[in-house]
Amino acid sequence: MSQENRKPTPIILDCDPGHDDAIAIMLAGGHPAIDLKGITVVAGNQTLEKTVNNALNVCQHLAIDVPVFAGCDRPMVRAKQVIADDIHGETGLDGPVFAPRTKTAEAMHAVMYIIETLKASVEPMTLVATGPLTNYAMALRMAPDIIEKIDRFVIMGGSLQHGNVTPAAEFNILADAEAAHIVFSAGKKVVMVGLDVTRKVLCLPSVVEKMRVEGNVASKLFVDLMSFFNKTQKEVFGWEGGPLHDPVTIAYLINPSILELQSMVTEIDYSQGPSYGRTNCDLFGFSKEPHNSEVAMNVDVEAFWQVIREGIACYE
Amino acid sequence: MSQENRKPTPIILDCDPGHDDAIAIMLAGGHPAIDLKGITVVAGNQTLEKTVNNALNVCQHLAIDVPVFAGCDRPMVRAKQVIADDIHGETGLDGPVFAPRTKTAEAMHAVMYIIETLKASVEPMTLVATGPLTNYAMALRMAPDIIEKIDRFVIMGGSLQHGNVTPAAEFNILADAEAAHIVFSAGKKVVMVGLDVTRKVLCLPSVVEKMRVEGNVASKLFVDLMSFFNKTQKEVFGWEGGPLHDPVTIAYLINPSILELQSMVTEIDYSQGPSYGRTNCDLFGFSKEPHNSEVAMNVDVEAFWQVIREGIACYE
Amino acid sequence: MSQENRKPTPIILDCDPGHDDAIAIMLAGGHPAIDLKGITVVAGNQTLEKTVNNALNVCQHLAIDVPVFAGCDRPMVRAKQVIADDIHGETGLDGPVFAPRTKTAEAMHAVMYIIETLKASVEPMTLVATGPLTNYAMALRMAPDIIEKIDRFVIMGGSLQHGNVTPAAEFNILADAEAAHIVFSAGKKVVMVGLDVTRKVLCLPSVVEKMRVEGNVASKLFVDLMSFFNKTQKEVFGWEGGPLHDPVTIAYLINPSILELQSMVTEIDYSQGPSYGRTNCDLFGFSKEPHNSEVAMNVDVEAFWQVIREGIACYE
Amino acid sequence: MSQENRKPTPIILDCDPGHDDAIAIMLAGGHPAIDLKGITVVAGNQTLEKTVNNALNVCQHLAIDVPVFAGCDRPMVRAKQVIADDIHGETGLDGPVFAPRTKTAEAMHAVMYIIETLKASVEPMTLVATGPLTNYAMALRMAPDIIEKIDRFVIMGGSLQHGNVTPAAEFNILADAEAAHIVFSAGKKVVMVGLDVTRKVLCLPSVVEKMRVEGNVASKLFVDLMSFFNKTQKEVFGWEGGPLHDPVTIAYLINPSILELQSMVTEIDYSQGPSYGRTNCDLFGFSKEPHNSEVAMNVDVEAFWQVIREGIACYE
Repeated sequence: MSQENRKPTPIILDCDPGHDDAIAIMLAGGHPAIDLKGITVVAGNQTLEKTVNNALNVCQHLAIDVPVFAGCDRPMVRAKQVIADDIHGETGLDGPVFAPRTKTAEAMHAVMYIIETLKASVEPMTLVATGPLTNYAMALRMAPDIIEKIDRFVIMGGSLQHGNVTPAAEFNILADAEAAHIVFSAGKKVVMVGLDVTRKVLCLPSVVEKMRVEGNVASKLFVDLMSFFNKTQKEVFGWEGGPLHDPVTIAYLINPSILELQSMVTEIDYSQGPSYGRTNCDLFGFSKEPHNSEVAMNVDVEAFWQVIREGIACYE
Repeated sequence: MSQENRKPTPIILDCDPGHDDAIAIMLAGGHPAIDLKGITVVAGNQTLEKTVNNALNVCQHLAIDVPVFAGCDRPMVRAKQVIADDIHGETGLDGPVFAPRTKTAEAMHAVMYIIETLKASVEPMTLVATGPLTNYAMALRMAPDIIEKIDRFVIMGGSLQHGNVTPAAEFNILADAEAAHIVFSAGKKVVMVGLDVTRKVLCLPSVVEKMRVEGNVASKLFVDLMSFFNKTQKEVFGWEGGPLHDPVTIAYLINPSILELQSMVTEIDYSQGPSYGRTNCDLFGFSKEPHNSEVAMNVDVEAFWQVIREGIACYE
Repeated sequence: MSQENRKPTPIILDCDPGHDDAIAIMLAGGHPAIDLKGITVVAGNQTLEKTVNNALNVCQHLAIDVPVFAGCDRPMVRAKQVIADDIHGETGLDGPVFAPRTKTAEAMHAVMYIIETLKASVEPMTLVATGPLTNYAMALRMAPDIIEKIDRFVIMGGSLQHGNVTPAAEFNILADAEAAHIVFSAGKKVVMVGLDVTRKVLCLPSVVEKMRVEGNVASKLFVDLMSFFNKTQKEVFGWEGGPLHDPVTIAYLINPSILELQSMVTEIDYSQGPSYGRTNCDLFGFSKEPHNSEVAMNVDVEAFWQVIREGIACYE
Repeated sequence: MSQENRKPTPIILDCDPGHDDAIAIMLAGGHPAIDLKGITVVAGNQTLEKTVNNALNVCQHLAIDVPVFAGCDRPMVRAKQVIADDIHGETGLDGPVFAPRTKTAEAMHAVMYIIETLKASVEPMTLVATGPLTNYAMALRMAPDIIEKIDRFVIMGGSLQHGNVTPAAEFNILADAEAAHIVFSAGKKVVMVGLDVTRKVLCLPSVVEKMRVEGNVASKLFVDLMSFFNKTQKEVFGWEGGPLHDPVTIAYLINPSILELQSMVTEIDYSQGPSYGRTNCDLFGFSKEPHNSEVAMNVDVEAFWQVIREGIACYE
């Protein structure tokens, strides 16, 4: 993997930290292949207040100097918000101990930041999402013209097969299926990094040990985060090592070869039936509509961990 | 009706002009009982570009000095936009001839204006809507705290009985039922001025003649607008005079006694079934939920026209 | 009203007695203008066991010699059955005292009886329903060819305006909207006698007194039934006299001039949204589909009571 | 596999032949472990007229002396019927040449046969389905008491993963999801033999050759059917050998060890959204409802083909 001469990919990272979001921030904020313009935060793994706090803590801890914007605290239409406190703990980022926080969120609303940044951008940007898609969907509805400045979406969410919150749905899509529908039908390709691949990148104890070696601030944060994360994964699911869902998006941007993608039509179920939140990925090509997604079918697990290690090594 | 000593009601008027919206602007912009802070515009009777143009034209023509903000050009979730060009013509405000337009829309997005204005307001404001409820719903989702600064909503929309676009649905609610659901479930009372009353305020030729008498700029605009409006009402529905839906909201704020309201639960159908857009007004009290609406059951037609006449007379 | 020379109309009466069903049975079983071939029973106002018992009791009491068939005890798809025991009491026909029952239901299932009878009939028959439409819908799905032997459906159910169980839905349609959808889309006209007219035939105490005059067995049954019915109507709705929904169907067959019908498209909402069970009657002709219904818009109340009186007088 | 001493399993086989249904009939009609009481037929792979004809042809050809009953020709609620003529050809059973048909369908409706047979049965019976579940669901709704006489359902249908007609749905469930919902919620276990296992039993040319060896009437029929079936599978999907879906149900009854089952909750999506017809199998146990299904997770392909071979050898 030698991407050094490539121009870094300009991105906005929309997230709801969350342990795996935190690793995504670390990777995006440190790796030279990524030009992280700003971090926008949404409710998801925990309430908005907590996810914003977590994003700020991670940035401060790793000295990532990018602005952080608070966005929507609930889904677009549904009243009911789902959070994942069983997985991510009371703060949404239990595990590490952070110094008192001095970094603060920007005054501007995340949705306005997304709109303004895209409007001002000369080149199209990549919009990465590791949480519910509310902020991007709201921006698309408020200012539809921004679509021209979007290169593509790279999202963690969905599943070709089984959900992880209902039999039909993965957490990020279930949390706001209307928003997901808006993003998937916006007119740009969505690289969908779903459970089909993220379930394969299990952060087993042996992986944690490998990442511990580097010994720097990022390495220590990784170890602290994953130790807690693996504890709840074991309690909730009985797994030795939890899937590190979110960083696969950033790792893919750093080294696209880690994912095997397949182009297809993906339709979001935002009906009010029992499959609300399902990503109906048209694997067999029943639909004649133009393809709107590149669905991750497989992941090179070794190469993925290599990117993570590289990302950790970017810190001092 | 002697409201002179009353403090004027501070409002934002969200509209999609539209002939009847234009009369609502005239009434809100001229009558001393109303403190019109700003006009926000949404797509509806015509596309956003045209409804914004129409709002500006009406303000300029009547020298109404309030800022106008362009908002959302499509519904929150549905891809399909409905417009009513059969009723309002190619421009959305066919009929009058306007001088070349010099007044321009503000740079700020209508949704941001709504949020900023409410946040800055010391007293709660009344949010009036005479079009689809997209702008208010988006504001409520982006900044839920604004609910504290909202006194109530007064909207033209819905129907206890028959719709006017489908058997189930009235135009403004059908155009964005998800937005209507958000407004009706936001936690403040919605005064729902639906077809049940607006169908009774028919702008018959005799009414047009009465309004012609005043002879001022507002009177002339009224006559020009209504002459065209009545022409399409006759062509489309076979009616002699069309219902003047939108101004009933403002007239009610000027003289609350014109409407007979009944407090009840109203639930919006935003399912994807054939009743999408129906306002299920719980007239008989089946639901045990707290009342979220005051539904207009009857209108004092004479008193309404008196308010309109008074509104026209406020201009020079 | 002189229909004596007319050939009596051959009907099946599907019902869920219920006080108003009982009057419908009395009218259909006694009046010479009606050739009542059989009574099929469905769950509705009470459970199937009780509605069958009630139908048999009424027939025995009035010496109506037609076979009675038990049908479906629940809706086609929904698990949840709604009954109306608040209105019709514990037995579903509280009020009269019946002699010990000797008349029994036929062994054949109501659905099979409907199919066999229609298949064997030389002339098309009228299918009358005063309860949920489950039995007819099941018959239509099991043996679609019977449609050729159906002249039309005459049903009590639905509403152009407000429901009587939810804001959207009338009881009989809500109880099985899928069945209603099947009947309304079967290809024959449905004469829909909805709440819009049945709410006007209020069985006020003055009406009860008029029916008491005849003094025969039918007159006494009417008085006993309506005295209880009016008591619960008063308790539940605060009304002096309850609407006598079901007999309007039979009365219309005896004297068609009592109803003002309007031909239109009616679509049943069997979505899983809040308007489940609504009859979307296309009063204004938005749809371009062929008309499938004749919706009762108005009723000649005096003429209706005259038919009832005539029906009572048919008994000894 | 030595089941000789076991009492044969009494079953009704509801099917929509179809090539793979035909093999299921052959297996059920010939193997001593199965006591095939009757064959009921439903529309599915082709129209009812054709599927009935095919069932009769197979029985006559193989001298299977069981009664055949025609059932429902369309789904319970949906108007739209889906057939699979791309797979099964114009007749629904293209390939073999049958002698002129003398065997005829019974006069009784399949739904009535199911009801009467269960009512008359001393021991609970197994209801096998290899087509849409309309007949069984109709029987359950007409005569709910039959549930006591049902041991369990064994159905070919559904998918934990991808559908084969839409991304969400498998053919048999999509064809009548309301019926599937009724069967899955009837109160008896459903052994769900879905695409997850049937896609593994590919009838490759090598398999066809093995079955040819026996050389009897059943062997020849198998070869003729599968040669055509594989031809369309290749044309439609590009596969060398098509999945032999339906016979897995009967083969499982003959030798239960061929399937690895997992007990779980399965909920059918019969909403009107894009996932209509999906079997939401709760693999991870999110639901706390009692388990209603035993879902086939894996199949012993060799053992399956051994059962088929054995089944063929049962004929002369």
